Amino acid sequence: MDYRERFFVQPGEKLDLDRIDPAQTGGHESNATALPEIEQNVARMAELQALLYADGGQSLLVVLQALDAAGKDGVIRHLFTGMNPQGTSVFGFKQPSAEEAAHDFLWRAHQRAPAKGQVVVFNRSHYEDVLVVRVHNLVPKAVWSKRYALIKDFENLLRHNGTRILKFFLHISADEQLARFKQRLDDPARNWKISDADYSERALWSDYVAAYEEALSRTSSKDAPWYVIPADHKWFRNLAVSQIIVATMEEMGLKLPPTRVDLKQIAAKYHAAAAEQARAAGKATKRSAKA
Amino acid sequence: MDYRERFFVQPGEKLDLDRIDPAQTGGHESNATALPEIEQNVARMAELQALLYADGGQSLLVVLQALDAAGKDGVIRHLFTGMNPQGTSVFGFKQPSAEEAAHDFLWRAHQRAPAKGQVVVFNRSHYEDVLVVRVHNLVPKAVWSKRYALIKDFENLLRHNGTRILKFFLHISADEQLARFKQRLDDPARNWKISDADYSERALWSDYVAAYEEALSRTSSKDAPWYVIPADHKWFRNLAVSQIIVATMEEMGLKLPPTRVDLKQIAAKYHAAAAEQARAAGKATKRSAKA
Repeated sequence: MDYRERFFVQPGEKLDLDRIDPAQTGGHESNATALPEIEQNVARMAELQALLYADGGQSLLVVLQALDAAGKDGVIRHLFTGMNPQGTSVFGFKQPSAEEAAHDFLWRAHQRAPAKGQVVVFNRSHYEDVLVVRVHNLVPKAVWSKRYALIKDFENLLRHNGTRILKFFLHISADEQLARFKQRLDDPARNWKISDADYSERALWSDYVAAYEEALSRTSSKDAPWYVIPADHKWFRNLAVSQIIVATMEEMGLKLPPTRVDLKQIAAKYHAAAAEQARAAGKATKRSAKA
Repeated sequence: MDYRERFFVQPGEKLDLDRIDPAQTGGHESNATALPEIEQNVARMAELQALLYADGGQSLLVVLQALDAAGKDGVIRHLFTGMNPQGTSVFGFKQPSAEEAAHDFLWRAHQRAPAKGQVVVFNRSHYEDVLVVRVHNLVPKAVWSKRYALIKDFENLLRHNGTRILKFFLHISADEQLARFKQRLDDPARNWKISDADYSERALWSDYVAAYEEALSRTSSKDAPWYVIPADHKWFRNLAVSQIIVATMEEMGLKLPPTRVDLKQIAAKYHAAAAEQARAAGKATKRSAKA
């Protein structure tokens, strides 16, 4: 099944998250049956990242958005740990610093946009400025409502410089979130993360859903697609996200750069003497002897 | 064997790289016998990185320096790919930009110093300003010779903010470098990287060795140690570097932060109702049903 097609948010269409089952698993029965495919995708992601790095002409920006405990950190840990950190960066967007808040809302996102050859993951992103900011009335509607168009322009700029953009909304149910909070509470290695605020945000669930529905619908496009990923099952979430990333990167036309030099000339100029020396000494080169 | 002790550069002592065999393997016979230990170290590094991130009070800076083809990229790929990219960043130091060159030589390194909780790897570093800069006479001796003390002050500042610093010089022989260049030349996936400059730098080998000897000797200390890692065998290089990183991180006293809330109170306030509801319905919670 092509999850890009299935989970793509149609631009401009009214999105109703209640009609998307967060517990669906695309025909897979369990983690056990999905795992080989996930592992294959993760391995392929690492290969494609190496190729993206070598190619040096394009870049990839992955945006992760979700309510708490939906699995943003899990996606990063499971799917991006296999990528070479030399070409892969993750940025977490927290409350803006004083300096960031003194600029337009896209300023800090722009600074973290991927350079050519790089994969960048946004853990939360510039979308917070039409999500938490809207839900908590941090700026007036007259301000946030203009941001959808500004975001599209910004992402368009990145696209024109060779950045492929993938945006994932990890969709969980309120029950599943509560269950995951409980697991954290009961886990001594993780309960230090819990705060009362985690729970109080749950009272605003429907406001967040409305904010997400509008944001996704208004900013999804073929060039900068949003995908709603059913995320009640962590393994299915990993399967769908990894499949979409692989399919997208496969289409980027990535290739190794041409050699910059005449290889034969280099070999003759620098390696012939060493080879001759080794032959004359009637023995293998040091290298071969050591192997 | 404790490689920290064996490969540590004694502060101020005259270092003679010629007396350190780049092909030594610390008693190990082959990659096959060393691999289980390397894998164990890499797994432990990933655990320690997660703990460093959670702890949030300290950070780790790993500096990699070496002549070309000695394995800086290989160390990153083999040892740091297992770390969660959310807390791990790699910076490659290339020729300074115009803006960087207009500042003091430590300005760009300082910007990339790890934040608390983070692991940062420098692929090349501020040491280039007493290495390539010295060998190619890019600034007068009167300038670069004062930089050792400035580097020590800078690293001392980082240490005072909780940054543990580890510096590795990957030590290969000239023969091994030439052999690796040949392997690149013969590998269609990598020969695009080759340039004539790679070879012409070899003529300056002894100048580089002298520059490294002085830099390592003058800037190694218990608090910001340099290690000379025999690197003719890639697997031994990985073994030694990973062992030193693990041993160092084990000593950092990393621990999970205290919980910020009264766990029982949270459980009673937010989870009791859900549990009661589930009981009343005479069935397991949704979560359990799904599992």
